[in-house]
Amino acid sequence: MAVEVFKSTTKLTEGVKVECTARNHSLVLDEPKELGGTDTGMNPLEAALCALGACKCIVARLFAKAHEIDLQDFKVDLEGDLDMDGVMGKNKDAKIGFLEIRSKVYIKSGSPKDKVEEFVRFIDKTCPVAASLADSPKMVTELTIEK
Amino acid sequence: MAVEVFKSTTKLTEGVKVECTARNHSLVLDEPKELGGTDTGMNPLEAALCALGACKCIVARLFAKAHEIDLQDFKVDLEGDLDMDGVMGKNKDAKIGFLEIRSKVYIKSGSPKDKVEEFVRFIDKTCPVAASLADSPKMVTELTIEK
Repeated sequence: MAVEVFKSTTKLTEGVKVECTARNHSLVLDEPKELGGTDTGMNPLEAALCALGACKCIVARLFAKAHEIDLQDFKVDLEGDLDMDGVMGKNKDAKIGFLEIRSKVYIKSGSPKDKVEEFVRFIDKTCPVAASLADSPKMVTELTIEK
Repeated sequence: MAVEVFKSTTKLTEGVKVECTARNHSLVLDEPKELGGTDTGMNPLEAALCALGACKCIVARLFAKAHEIDLQDFKVDLEGDLDMDGVMGKNKDAKIGFLEIRSKVYIKSGSPKDKVEEFVRFIDKTCPVAASLADSPKMVTELTIEK
């Protein structure tokens, strides 16, 4: 096993605005005004979908050559369904996470249709963000309280 | 059921640089140079950890009052372990997604320790990004090939 550790830090600032950093990079996540935020960035669910789609894009680029796929363009439109009754605690039996995530993959390629279809199935299986959603990681929380 | 649909778009540009958009917001995800990128943004795994931590931050803000928690500061440091032998296809039995995700929660609060601990457990259960990782969504891929 060759374990690599990925790290990020997220800090709540005013309202629901969150400053996020990873290595030398930062981004702001927030909520739109109708969900109580100031709309200075996308929200965490949108960011999670971006992470998923970007991961598929990168896997496509990295493995196209080995799969002999002509890759001219690659785009993913993502949609995730959330049951707000679950999130808001109105229905205790409702699922709280995404019910379904749809990845609409657009690829421009001169390769045969069946090879492209097989390649897209390979991407779905090989993308670590998709795999983290399909095959749950162990989730551990450690708490430090400052008075 | 009150389904709300969240949407993002991710487009592969040069190399492994991905332009991501959601509503009026955009961000660039990329890989560091040692992983074949140009390091113009965090990578998708770091972004996924940011989405998870930011989601917990926002749930903390939105529910602190109802739980009678004095919330002065809230931060989450996240670590996710990946087995690169799985990702790179060197070990077909290895897990491809995160093996474990550790959320190190730092909270500044004058509330009693047991109430804060209970609140943090509530956050873990109520955060939709955490719930999407713990309780897998249905994953659907639709493919459009352009010649």
